[in-house]
Amino acid sequence: MPFIPLFIKPMIHRVLLSLGLFLCIYMNTAAQQPIPIPTPAQLQWQQAELAALVCWDLHVFDGEFYVQPKARITPVEDYNAFNPEKYDMDQWIRSLKDAGFKIAIFTVSHETGFFFHQSNATPYSMKAVKWQDGQGDILRDFKVACEKYDILPAVYIGTRWNAFYGVYDFKVQGDNEFARNRQQHYNQMIEEIVEEIFTNYGDWAMVWFDGGAHGPEQGGPDVLSIFEQHQPNSIFYHNLQRADIRWGGSETGTVPYPSWGTFPYPAIGAGESARKEIGANNFQLLKTGDPNGAYYMPAMSDAPLRGSGGHDWFWEPNRAHIIYPLENLVDMYYQSVGHNSTLILGVTPNPDGLMPDPDVKRLKEFGDEINRRFSNPLARISGTGNTVSLVLDSAQRIDQIVLQEDIAYGERVREFILEAEIDGKWTVVYTGSSIGHKHIVKIDPVRTGKIRFVSQSSIGEPQLKALSVYKIDPLR
Amino acid sequence: MPFIPLFIKPMIHRVLLSLGLFLCIYMNTAAQQPIPIPTPAQLQWQQAELAALVCWDLHVFDGEFYVQPKARITPVEDYNAFNPEKYDMDQWIRSLKDAGFKIAIFTVSHETGFFFHQSNATPYSMKAVKWQDGQGDILRDFKVACEKYDILPAVYIGTRWNAFYGVYDFKVQGDNEFARNRQQHYNQMIEEIVEEIFTNYGDWAMVWFDGGAHGPEQGGPDVLSIFEQHQPNSIFYHNLQRADIRWGGSETGTVPYPSWGTFPYPAIGAGESARKEIGANNFQLLKTGDPNGAYYMPAMSDAPLRGSGGHDWFWEPNRAHIIYPLENLVDMYYQSVGHNSTLILGVTPNPDGLMPDPDVKRLKEFGDEINRRFSNPLARISGTGNTVSLVLDSAQRIDQIVLQEDIAYGERVREFILEAEIDGKWTVVYTGSSIGHKHIVKIDPVRTGKIRFVSQSSIGEPQLKALSVYKIDPLR
Repeated sequence: MPFIPLFIKPMIHRVLLSLGLFLCIYMNTAAQQPIPIPTPAQLQWQQAELAALVCWDLHVFDGEFYVQPKARITPVEDYNAFNPEKYDMDQWIRSLKDAGFKIAIFTVSHETGFFFHQSNATPYSMKAVKWQDGQGDILRDFKVACEKYDILPAVYIGTRWNAFYGVYDFKVQGDNEFARNRQQHYNQMIEEIVEEIFTNYGDWAMVWFDGGAHGPEQGGPDVLSIFEQHQPNSIFYHNLQRADIRWGGSETGTVPYPSWGTFPYPAIGAGESARKEIGANNFQLLKTGDPNGAYYMPAMSDAPLRGSGGHDWFWEPNRAHIIYPLENLVDMYYQSVGHNSTLILGVTPNPDGLMPDPDVKRLKEFGDEINRRFSNPLARISGTGNTVSLVLDSAQRIDQIVLQEDIAYGERVREFILEAEIDGKWTVVYTGSSIGHKHIVKIDPVRTGKIRFVSQSSIGEPQLKALSVYKIDPLR
Repeated sequence: MPFIPLFIKPMIHRVLLSLGLFLCIYMNTAAQQPIPIPTPAQLQWQQAELAALVCWDLHVFDGEFYVQPKARITPVEDYNAFNPEKYDMDQWIRSLKDAGFKIAIFTVSHETGFFFHQSNATPYSMKAVKWQDGQGDILRDFKVACEKYDILPAVYIGTRWNAFYGVYDFKVQGDNEFARNRQQHYNQMIEEIVEEIFTNYGDWAMVWFDGGAHGPEQGGPDVLSIFEQHQPNSIFYHNLQRADIRWGGSETGTVPYPSWGTFPYPAIGAGESARKEIGANNFQLLKTGDPNGAYYMPAMSDAPLRGSGGHDWFWEPNRAHIIYPLENLVDMYYQSVGHNSTLILGVTPNPDGLMPDPDVKRLKEFGDEINRRFSNPLARISGTGNTVSLVLDSAQRIDQIVLQEDIAYGERVREFILEAEIDGKWTVVYTGSSIGHKHIVKIDPVRTGKIRFVSQSSIGEPQLKALSVYKIDPLR
């Protein structure tokens, strides 16, 4: 084993982290080619596979259809429209748990400027509303419920837009000294808010700055330092210096294949601040990643659950009909989780304060179907090296194969084939490239008693965490 | 008596008010020249004579010296700096009562944008702060204490500047659609705030919109309609349509003599919106008024108590030395109350939440001195007609005379003399013009047993409420 033994890895991580080295690598002693590896937080993130982005903002309560460009420049008329009378956070998180989500991300703020936590840094937050006599704290309720249901909690913080304070694309409106003073005030306010969120609620599995977080070099707040100080073991997404995960380049809940977990730049930027190479060809680089990228930064595949014939991240009246059909969600799963990416489904509680019944039902159907398909492989094996073989008890008909690298050692496989022994002869049933955390392969059904993975190109020795075979009846 | 009998006046006022006619007049049947008369609220205001403007805002708590132009364009860094640990509203109002003030005006907001009341319209208000767990309501405490001490409560509402929201001289900063939307939002927010202040706290003796209130015709909120609906018996100060009182043209606590209670325009405007005729010659018209003005609109004489070698409306550290000396305050009284104007002294509680001891002491000295001088006239008489004579029990030395018209009938006297019978001969001791609510006359001391007022020119028959004579030893 040329690799650093597992038991000293945590120590190395700590040393690397303490040195501020977020580019963690193993040196392949043979080729001396560095292999980017995930931090423990990234590892946890990848292993979770399914995340729910719980979207809420004041405009959910205004009874009007949300038009994002208009909402970004129009303050909410009455913040006391926020009055979820049947509010039941437990129901939200239970519905996510029941659907198999491992991570939940809550939008403590989005674009109205309102923050759903108890804040002493911004008055435009829970203290302001009549609801629960201004004592409410949705973020705390969310954290508590996540802990109860063993869901990893994460937080989404919108600072780029603030229709209340007059912030557009990070910039306080106006060009005079007043605007510059208010920008400074806004930046400080954001830093204080972020510190509240990072210190008053315990650990977050992931922190998502919507549209990136402009740092001081762009005239913005320094949220990265606050993150590093208070959430050193979390995932930071993202600013111009750092992104621990990357947007998958679309809001379709999918990434193409291959989608490598590595990326050539330490950050992806956003909007005008994105590199040309990243934005080019409809964000192709975000979608595919780069097998030779020096940074471990897997893609996320995000989509709103209410995205079939619409694209509602936020609850709107009478829109249950655009909830994705089950088959679309399952397909999404194959093209996200099955492509080495995290599926992030946007869900949105209604103005009553409940996850709507049709959404809960569909989520449950989705979770049940994924569970039905993948919880019981016909057989499974793990192994190290260029060939890993799986021998079944008896010849069986198989139609899907799940491959997983142990990405604690980095993504190593570059090219591989899957072979099945059919009629005593090894037959190629699939030719692939990336595996990463997970690759789900649909093959033409074959009857076989032996399946093997053969690496044809890798950086370092392949570490296969799982080779699992399934017989799935998609029609059931 | 050509005048409308007193007992039907209230009815007429109600009729006029209900017709929206704020220009109240009596017709002088002889000359057919209209005589503007005060509303009951204006009458009450004039009779009160002494008002305290209680100034507070967040920057009182920042420990830094207040520089108004800078503060107007710089949001307060930490609104939780507001933490008056020894807060005692009772002490504030008691100190005003003890000093003889009849009206107290509280700055529910000034220029930071923060409102000192429990609001559901702006989050930047008492709910936001940690102090009293966000349950505090300085405005309510103020109202309650005023009632306890039989002080007329009034409220000062700053909407022209809002360093937090980004409002400069009524205008939300920026020139794009976002700014226009935020202007609309701000206007609506102000209307809602004003409605809260006008409906949740009972009646106000006077309502002061700082720097005027831009109405809808200037792209501002329509606060006048809300005032008319909810505070119809109060004093409105002011917007481009209406001003029930007028600024006295300086912040020296004085107006010149004469300062007529009438004005040729229904409003005075502010800043750029002021008429040229009003702003001309250092606001001369505001100072003097116009005896032929069709609108009853007496002048106020405002000055900060901490105005001697400085001009601090708001508390600053280590500035007790600029509290006006007693003799200045007494002189101010003569040149304000004694000139038919209301003296408005600015007082400001300290960051502990107390009216500072040196200020309280000086206010008390001031009240005591005014009381000493004027509470016990040697003699007093009232009367109607061109000549009103006062016969003393015996010849005495007098040095000051106080004249008062019954301004319920309007200001009528235009020119007059005061004569004393000296050695059996009427001798002119003073020649004056305006009297109005009160004119205090210092004369060269004379020894006399008879004093008379002789009107030389008036609009309608003079209605003298008081002719009082005093022997005052200013050196005591």
